Amino acid sequence: MPAFSIGVDLGGTNLRIAAVEESGIQLEGVSVLTEISRGREKVVNEITEAARFLTNKYSPSHKFLGLGIGVPGIIDLQSGTVHSASNLPDWSGYPVRDDLESRLGTPVILENDANCAAVGEKWLGAGQHVEDLCMITLGTGVGGGFVVNGRPWHGVLGMAGELGHTTVIPEGRACPCGNHGCLEQYASATAIRRAAVEAADSGESPCLVAAREQDQALTSRTVHTCAQAGDPAAQHIFAAAGTALGIALANLINAFNLPVYVIGGGVSRAWDQFSPAMFHELTERSIVFRAGEQQKRSHRATEVKPAQLRDRAGLIGAARLPMIMQPGRCCSLAG
Amino acid sequence: MPAFSIGVDLGGTNLRIAAVEESGIQLEGVSVLTEISRGREKVVNEITEAARFLTNKYSPSHKFLGLGIGVPGIIDLQSGTVHSASNLPDWSGYPVRDDLESRLGTPVILENDANCAAVGEKWLGAGQHVEDLCMITLGTGVGGGFVVNGRPWHGVLGMAGELGHTTVIPEGRACPCGNHGCLEQYASATAIRRAAVEAADSGESPCLVAAREQDQALTSRTVHTCAQAGDPAAQHIFAAAGTALGIALANLINAFNLPVYVIGGGVSRAWDQFSPAMFHELTERSIVFRAGEQQKRSHRATEVKPAQLRDRAGLIGAARLPMIMQPGRCCSLAG
Repeated sequence: MPAFSIGVDLGGTNLRIAAVEESGIQLEGVSVLTEISRGREKVVNEITEAARFLTNKYSPSHKFLGLGIGVPGIIDLQSGTVHSASNLPDWSGYPVRDDLESRLGTPVILENDANCAAVGEKWLGAGQHVEDLCMITLGTGVGGGFVVNGRPWHGVLGMAGELGHTTVIPEGRACPCGNHGCLEQYASATAIRRAAVEAADSGESPCLVAAREQDQALTSRTVHTCAQAGDPAAQHIFAAAGTALGIALANLINAFNLPVYVIGGGVSRAWDQFSPAMFHELTERSIVFRAGEQQKRSHRATEVKPAQLRDRAGLIGAARLPMIMQPGRCCSLAG
Repeated sequence: MPAFSIGVDLGGTNLRIAAVEESGIQLEGVSVLTEISRGREKVVNEITEAARFLTNKYSPSHKFLGLGIGVPGIIDLQSGTVHSASNLPDWSGYPVRDDLESRLGTPVILENDANCAAVGEKWLGAGQHVEDLCMITLGTGVGGGFVVNGRPWHGVLGMAGELGHTTVIPEGRACPCGNHGCLEQYASATAIRRAAVEAADSGESPCLVAAREQDQALTSRTVHTCAQAGDPAAQHIFAAAGTALGIALANLINAFNLPVYVIGGGVSRAWDQFSPAMFHELTERSIVFRAGEQQKRSHRATEVKPAQLRDRAGLIGAARLPMIMQPGRCCSLAG
């Protein structure tokens, strides 16, 4: 009898739930708009109903391993609560794990969304061939997650992977976190958009000025289109993001010498525009990256590559958790 | 019957060898000046003779676990060779592990010196209470090592811990590695000495000018004495080192959220002079450090502290290796 689990990816916009076989096959998925404004109870009810539906449907033919849930925020692993989640204000302090466990009568594993994405990419995406990887997600903010020896790495506070707040330019742009020059200030979708608005306002980019008439928000996708069309200002924005990302990655590679670093999130679709500057910095700044390049034939080079699962990584990773983290199978605080 | 192992710490100046019990008690130690100029064969003979003496002496009363050796350079774990070691030129390419194993007929574990120091501090020093730590050594250069789940972390090339080449100031001082603004250019003994010479040459520091008459080389110990005597130029040198170290540490703490970061090496004795600037940067730049400070009561704060074993850390760590890394007990490439 094959085994399956349920993954829940709680985004600021979408709530996605899927039943996934241990083989990696997705048995069935459900996606709904997260109606945050209607309150946490509504969302938890939707999760509970969908999970009951899926377990009832697949338990006769499959062994059920549990439910994994990824939440965009800082979580407390010991208590299974959401410590803070800026997009889900009424979830702060809520004991997600215990409440879902008592409602469903099944083991629940709580994880933050960046770690879920890292686990997903390790299982079925860009890191299938390795046991250790680092994932950086370039979204509204910049997030990060590590997989070490096949499992998410939490750190002593459960806060490992705060890569958006890596200092890349010590005297750089102020960040709401209190620091200056954080990676997030250069390589997030928010930073791309801000730089594009500045370029459009200054009149230096006719392409961005014209694009703003179609897309008031100047999303990173629009900026990417201008860059691909040859607009120097738009190209410069992605080059600056690539430079910042390259500095952060060079330091991570020198420190941990992991085999794979995966770049995901919406901005990562502009890989063609930012990756040349990123690789330039890696080559200049990381002796470990350079040493790996010399040993490419022995498959010990450092791979820096785009994510493969796109926006499904978090869901896939959440479903993976009960397969690798079930009590009795592993589960120290750090591991 | 208690167990013991032999540790070898091969420095650029001293060769130290010790028999250490699994309890942590040092049974016997030998220290000789490494006569590098007389060639590798002479050093290897000394290691072999001392190891034979110690095994013969303690094997009747103890179970012998093997020999661990720490080498200052980049090593190839798979082949057990020294890849490059700038202070030991004729060791490059030498199969240390296999040669010592065949001479002694005993298991030998080769490791780089920074990882040995990290293992030593974890076993009997500043990290006894944790399973994961990062060690930064401020010596002639700046080195680093990680212990993860109680064992040294090597990375895919065995080059993890190249923390001296962390970029702290992207447009900063050129480093021989090819990068600009490496930590080593600000926080090594070499950098302290260079800055002190510059300050003495410029005449801005009467204390350093006077000190140079006694100590031509202006060692970091001399600069430390001037700083403690209130010399502003000397104090500024350590503050700059602390700032650079703080930027590097803030990024490491945000990335891995380990419980303990240990600062060792000769420069670390000037803790009183550089640590205020270091902690200032940590507080400004690391949200994970700050979050830990708020949870000090739950013992989940990030500890940044000076090494305890001083120059014995590498020897103690080398002796520890056969106790934790013996074939059959663990030993993946990464772990």
